[in-house]
Amino acid sequence: MSRSFYPPQRTLMGPGPSDVSPRVLGALARPTIGHLDPLFVQLMDEVKELLQYAFQTENELTLPVSAPGSAGMEACFVNLVSPGDTVIVCQNGVFGGRMKENVERCGATAIMVEDAWGAPVSLERVAAAFDEHPQAAILAFVHAETSTGVRSDAAALCALARERGALSIVDTVTSLGGIELNVDAWGADAVYSGTQKCLSCIPGLSPVTFGPRAVERIRNRRHKVQSWFLDMQLVMGYWSGGGKRAYHHTAPVNDIYALHEALLMLREEGLEAAHARHRLNHEALVAGLEAMNLDMAVAAAHRLPQLNSVLIPEGVDDAAVRALLLREFNLEIGAGLGALAGKTWRIGLMGFASSERNVLYCLAALEAALARQGVAFDVGGAIPAATAVFAA
Amino acid sequence: MSRSFYPPQRTLMGPGPSDVSPRVLGALARPTIGHLDPLFVQLMDEVKELLQYAFQTENELTLPVSAPGSAGMEACFVNLVSPGDTVIVCQNGVFGGRMKENVERCGATAIMVEDAWGAPVSLERVAAAFDEHPQAAILAFVHAETSTGVRSDAAALCALARERGALSIVDTVTSLGGIELNVDAWGADAVYSGTQKCLSCIPGLSPVTFGPRAVERIRNRRHKVQSWFLDMQLVMGYWSGGGKRAYHHTAPVNDIYALHEALLMLREEGLEAAHARHRLNHEALVAGLEAMNLDMAVAAAHRLPQLNSVLIPEGVDDAAVRALLLREFNLEIGAGLGALAGKTWRIGLMGFASSERNVLYCLAALEAALARQGVAFDVGGAIPAATAVFAA
Repeated sequence: MSRSFYPPQRTLMGPGPSDVSPRVLGALARPTIGHLDPLFVQLMDEVKELLQYAFQTENELTLPVSAPGSAGMEACFVNLVSPGDTVIVCQNGVFGGRMKENVERCGATAIMVEDAWGAPVSLERVAAAFDEHPQAAILAFVHAETSTGVRSDAAALCALARERGALSIVDTVTSLGGIELNVDAWGADAVYSGTQKCLSCIPGLSPVTFGPRAVERIRNRRHKVQSWFLDMQLVMGYWSGGGKRAYHHTAPVNDIYALHEALLMLREEGLEAAHARHRLNHEALVAGLEAMNLDMAVAAAHRLPQLNSVLIPEGVDDAAVRALLLREFNLEIGAGLGALAGKTWRIGLMGFASSERNVLYCLAALEAALARQGVAFDVGGAIPAATAVFAA
Repeated sequence: MSRSFYPPQRTLMGPGPSDVSPRVLGALARPTIGHLDPLFVQLMDEVKELLQYAFQTENELTLPVSAPGSAGMEACFVNLVSPGDTVIVCQNGVFGGRMKENVERCGATAIMVEDAWGAPVSLERVAAAFDEHPQAAILAFVHAETSTGVRSDAAALCALARERGALSIVDTVTSLGGIELNVDAWGADAVYSGTQKCLSCIPGLSPVTFGPRAVERIRNRRHKVQSWFLDMQLVMGYWSGGGKRAYHHTAPVNDIYALHEALLMLREEGLEAAHARHRLNHEALVAGLEAMNLDMAVAAAHRLPQLNSVLIPEGVDDAAVRALLLREFNLEIGAGLGALAGKTWRIGLMGFASSERNVLYCLAALEAALARQGVAFDVGGAIPAATAVFAA
């Protein structure tokens, strides 16, 4: 017979979900009101404004899709891709492969531009793909690859797409709130994200924003969008500001409370301050890891501060270390994904979880775990190395 | 500048979301853990078992889709319908129309069987549609029409589909937990529901269950499911019991906590007791409404106890009454939808909101509102009429 579930208080330093702020959990549990209640409609307007700030955009069509990031991804593809289209998809990790699946399920052709897992997307290869496929209607890429911890040059890729007359679809699931993201300045056309990474919110929603060129393409579609649930022409009727809102689906009211609070916290801190915090904690973590003789999997120039890929040293039992961290320290770090399974750990420092406390706790716990694995390093060296960064 | 949002404590007696139990809100706000955490995986198993109880099924493929009911609907259609298929769709309210959209977006043909809004689906008309379209692969219908408050004979419709060699897709968004629903006994093949109606849970998830014949059809598909997010072949890898779970998408962890608690409450009460409670509160409400000279929109034999459609009396200002109830009584009742807009109110008595307290509160508030509209009735008669039902 089941009983009520009381989860332990984990420290979430994997690839997401990350630690959720108590303020956000508090908002989440407030009394449910109707999804057509005038007060909820007002809240939706505020969420839109706050998302516009987070994305740095004035796009009218900015809203949280009522489902996780993979649905946000799908919302971008099914609304912008039509059967027969050619789409250039950059792959340098797991999520480019998922984009390919999306393109093909829309009846379109995906031209893959592949880079090594751990490297950023190569502009030259993308330019060459456009040379070879000048009819390409869309360029799709991941800004911050969650599977590897790599940042690609989103500004340059969006500019290249514009130059070639294509729209851009940008995955910012792991970047929003953690590193610079300027939708309007970059001219990004369709952008999706998630709530459970650097926004420190619960998983379950996917903020998206569509620019004027994307909206025009949606309005001019000849084929109905294959998903009713994700059809932005219909969703717009519910989320578009002002006037009468058409019922489309029942919004996840409490999740929206939580997102509102998380976005409010981001605006109170300010984007620049949030980015600086992510950078500092990353630098301290790396200093500590290097003091333990651990090597980062990604070259310094391309590292994401919010997702740190670490090479697992020779002879260390990946699963045993992670299990020990979870069991004895209530600390979750991430396993490698896809091609990097068993080769890397992914240590997240996202949103509320990007804190001095978490950096030091993670280093201390990892020292203990590695010592038990018999790895040779200067035990006790990680904490001083990290605190030196904080003190600087 | 936005501030934290503190919603008022509404009484939710519309078509859903309905009042959420404090136990469920408490569970919702518990600390987030990872979606691959062994404790979360265990919780998923419990949720599956509890859903099997609620649906009265032993179907292995029983899980909550990570998005609202309309995504659960879409999950059933995109997984079972292939391009070129013929699907018989019953429409006696709003949601049959949405099914038609789903069928067509799958590249299939919808044969519509239409009944009056307020009447149940006619078995004879469905049988005639099968006679005319013997190749029909699927019969889709709504068990409990939320837009009208009508119950159709799901057992007979599922049996008819089997007889004709077709699968059934059944919308139980408003029925699950409120009235009899026996997936296995009926031989229903694919069934979807929502969390925000008679489960007294927050909106945002859609429980679904697929029987063996449906699973076989999914496994034998020749076309990839057009939605990656809703592809049950992939979702199964994450939700299927035991063994290694393949990462598909990040589960809405906290929403799952809430659903687990809501399902636990349903099992503690027991399905039969829950159904009896819905019936009793419905009878008391109807007695009170009739004492106010209000007429029910649906014939007694087909009424849903959890969703009561009431005809708005001549000369009464629909919107003014609902606005007054919301403003002065913090009470939400539903407007008519589609063909019934302006003609009916929809009074929900769903899940936690189906209580003697809510029945009496709603009657008292409605008496006050109608008195101000100058409607002639025996003021003060509703409460005694309702309490007589409770006392019987």
